[in-house]
Amino acid sequence: MSINTSPPSGTRDFLPADLARRRHLEGVIRRVYESFGFVALETPAFENLSTLLGKYGDEGDQLLFRLLHRRDKLARALQEPGVGEKDLADLGLRYDLTVPLARVIANAKDLPRFFKRYQIQPVWRADRPGKGRYREFWQCDIDITGTTSLVAEAEVCGAVVRVFEELGVRDITIALNHRQLLRCLIQAAGLPPAQEETALVAIDKLDKIGLDGVRKEFTTRGIEATAGERLLTLITRPPEGSSPSPAGPRPPTSPAIEGKGPADGEAGAQLPPTADHRAATADHRAAARADHRAEVAELDRLAGLLADVPEAAGPLAQLRELLDIAAGSAAGPYLRIDATLARGLGYYTGPIFEIRSPAFRGSLGGGGRYDGLIGMFKGTAIPAVGFSIGFERLLLVMEERGLFGSVSWGPDVLLCRFPDVAPADALRTASALRQAGLKVEVFPETPKIGKQFAYAESIKVKLAAILGATEAQEGKLSVKHLGTGEQLTLPLAAAIARLREWSKAG
Amino acid sequence: MSINTSPPSGTRDFLPADLARRRHLEGVIRRVYESFGFVALETPAFENLSTLLGKYGDEGDQLLFRLLHRRDKLARALQEPGVGEKDLADLGLRYDLTVPLARVIANAKDLPRFFKRYQIQPVWRADRPGKGRYREFWQCDIDITGTTSLVAEAEVCGAVVRVFEELGVRDITIALNHRQLLRCLIQAAGLPPAQEETALVAIDKLDKIGLDGVRKEFTTRGIEATAGERLLTLITRPPEGSSPSPAGPRPPTSPAIEGKGPADGEAGAQLPPTADHRAATADHRAAARADHRAEVAELDRLAGLLADVPEAAGPLAQLRELLDIAAGSAAGPYLRIDATLARGLGYYTGPIFEIRSPAFRGSLGGGGRYDGLIGMFKGTAIPAVGFSIGFERLLLVMEERGLFGSVSWGPDVLLCRFPDVAPADALRTASALRQAGLKVEVFPETPKIGKQFAYAESIKVKLAAILGATEAQEGKLSVKHLGTGEQLTLPLAAAIARLREWSKAG
Repeated sequence: MSINTSPPSGTRDFLPADLARRRHLEGVIRRVYESFGFVALETPAFENLSTLLGKYGDEGDQLLFRLLHRRDKLARALQEPGVGEKDLADLGLRYDLTVPLARVIANAKDLPRFFKRYQIQPVWRADRPGKGRYREFWQCDIDITGTTSLVAEAEVCGAVVRVFEELGVRDITIALNHRQLLRCLIQAAGLPPAQEETALVAIDKLDKIGLDGVRKEFTTRGIEATAGERLLTLITRPPEGSSPSPAGPRPPTSPAIEGKGPADGEAGAQLPPTADHRAATADHRAAARADHRAEVAELDRLAGLLADVPEAAGPLAQLRELLDIAAGSAAGPYLRIDATLARGLGYYTGPIFEIRSPAFRGSLGGGGRYDGLIGMFKGTAIPAVGFSIGFERLLLVMEERGLFGSVSWGPDVLLCRFPDVAPADALRTASALRQAGLKVEVFPETPKIGKQFAYAESIKVKLAAILGATEAQEGKLSVKHLGTGEQLTLPLAAAIARLREWSKAG
Repeated sequence: MSINTSPPSGTRDFLPADLARRRHLEGVIRRVYESFGFVALETPAFENLSTLLGKYGDEGDQLLFRLLHRRDKLARALQEPGVGEKDLADLGLRYDLTVPLARVIANAKDLPRFFKRYQIQPVWRADRPGKGRYREFWQCDIDITGTTSLVAEAEVCGAVVRVFEELGVRDITIALNHRQLLRCLIQAAGLPPAQEETALVAIDKLDKIGLDGVRKEFTTRGIEATAGERLLTLITRPPEGSSPSPAGPRPPTSPAIEGKGPADGEAGAQLPPTADHRAATADHRAAARADHRAEVAELDRLAGLLADVPEAAGPLAQLRELLDIAAGSAAGPYLRIDATLARGLGYYTGPIFEIRSPAFRGSLGGGGRYDGLIGMFKGTAIPAVGFSIGFERLLLVMEERGLFGSVSWGPDVLLCRFPDVAPADALRTASALRQAGLKVEVFPETPKIGKQFAYAESIKVKLAAILGATEAQEGKLSVKHLGTGEQLTLPLAAAIARLREWSKAG
């Protein structure tokens, strides 16, 4: 037959071994988020298109999966002359977890004044699938709504850092910038206000296309070359211990992929190519991290550049305050001011952040403050700040580094029986084992015992319980450790105890 | 503003308290399934339409959500004359978890010979939404593939029974029938073979529309009245202790809703209307349950009716054997032969089952053997049997009966501070509490402490930690139990210990 049995392009089946790792990772994220006081929210897979459209930019709108109208509604639509996409659907699969949150905040009654929610669910984007780029992928978001206090920024960054620390991925930094500060820098470079947006979009591509690429983007977007060069100089952080320098090559390890939301479906294709590259990068990171004074110095440098821009005072003060507050949190040692950080999404209004590691070319997550989005649904503004971990990328880093260790899954024991044992007796024995906390698979047929053992090994089960007619009559059970070959026949209770011992010993 | 912020029709936002109950239920189901040796599988939200179409019957095909083509593909489709639904989509949201499993079995390499998988994921059906009827709802499936041994039937039934026992929903029965047996009964009633399918569909509606409704269905479907009446007599089980009787009224508590898969989105509207009704029903159930001999007697009755139908011997022998095997499993006491059970889905080939309770008008789950479905994908047949719990309905029963007790969620402690405390100090204290295993929310602002306490109470947090400037300097912390009013100031370590004590005491 020629039936296609692969999952649809850009999606994956998660078999038990994969799923065990995914669940382990999700469990750590969930536990850390909850320790920070975040509570769980889940929203439907699809939303009204009116909820989704116009929140992610044109490119985002293009990547929405839309649900086709049905029956009469479809028939009517198809009869209209010039029928198009917008006439054929009014529902779409969710594209991220932030917009659904904003809708829920506007809709739900009795939410706490500060709603600290986490949400770990798949999102869907009709991106061109490719290696490590999925159409269905998971996001792990935390957000705090209802306060403009920078304690919220420090807490979301702290929670994300704790996740990475718990998982053993410690060579990270959190790039920190401020949307308004970046706008001030664009202004200071001499670009007209009308070019702010387009300059932002170009800068956001820096990590993908490099400095020369951004220069070309500037040209394409009609940005005057001198002003563009001035901007690149302004935002580029001088090397540690040097005086401010013109835009030099940027380390290749801090590319932002975004333009697509706080985390996305790209992964494998972005891994650093060589070990040398990685080592060089790690050095750079080590040098770059953890010096609070260096971060304050970078803010001083930017303040100096922006002395004539009164609008810069606010964002600069906020970043200073955030560095102070975060010094008391897990995030403190990881924050690094980076004026080149732009973040693709339109809705950010304040501090923005992105988590980076030499383990991965591209951000492992990101977020920021968005004080306007909820108001688009609610009418009255509600401030909010969020951070999203890119689940697929983090998983990839963990796998690359062997950080999962042995995540166990599957049954502990295979219950085998001889053909002269009634299956009811086997099931009775299985019940006893299960009640003792063991995970037990019953071999459903009765080929030779050796074949049953071979099956146990094929599914990586190390322990077998073997029921013969004599044992069944005498209330006994044979147990065998398939790893060591040790085998003995014991009264049922003792047999269960032995299986539990073996099982706990791994 | 007039923006609609409700979730789309037929879907729900799950706020933290709802989600805590759903997770608790899911956790029990997962644990029991794993104790039976089932391993987890997850599949994509959408499938190729070629995978889904033709598996659920016409009504099912109509209820698929299809994903609209995009860009060029859509433009090309819209230019064709007479463009219709089938030209506009080739992907659809999954409708159940069984068909995706069949596809995976056909596709995946290296699956165990007996693949025992569980899958707990949402499915989507474009049903007319109504009270308790959802377009997005969860199914909890277990299936065993690769064996025709009836041990598999006993195991899936046993696992489902253990879930219900663990949850405290013990007034259940598992209705048991056999597809081929039902076909033999239809034949024995004198219906022509060509009417088997349509008679099955009519009988499947018995619980929805009652005997008179089925009689009308028979007429509509061109089934001759005498033969139809004969069929109803054959399949109706005589009351306990009586001789076979003509079709009498069936207790109103065993309606099958199906025609839609092993479990579905309907729920609340199906609850029994009155307590009296419930009590009467419970009596009926109690009388009906647990007598192995009575079940064998019913099989004897059916065997007598089918003495002239040679094809009946096989299915009757299978049901006898299944009763014997299951006597050794948790399912034993709950199995009840019910020749009226039809199950709507076309793919069943052997034993079929449905879980019923007086707590709910409609099945709480169901399943059966389907030895042909996987072959539709793989080319070669692979036998399989499965059981699915209706998550939404079980949840409703648990809520109605108050079986959730107090599922806890949310932070343990709200960390409050006076305005003269640096936020960094508060975050440092929060870190210490979190490292001790407490879930801690930090109040992000500094209004009067009374307001901070009021917020704690509004989010049902019972414990407060209060940081003043003096405490911060002296390494101390005030802790307050907002339930009892007890408050004391202690060195940090002692304060943490006290909070943990309070937290553990609930």
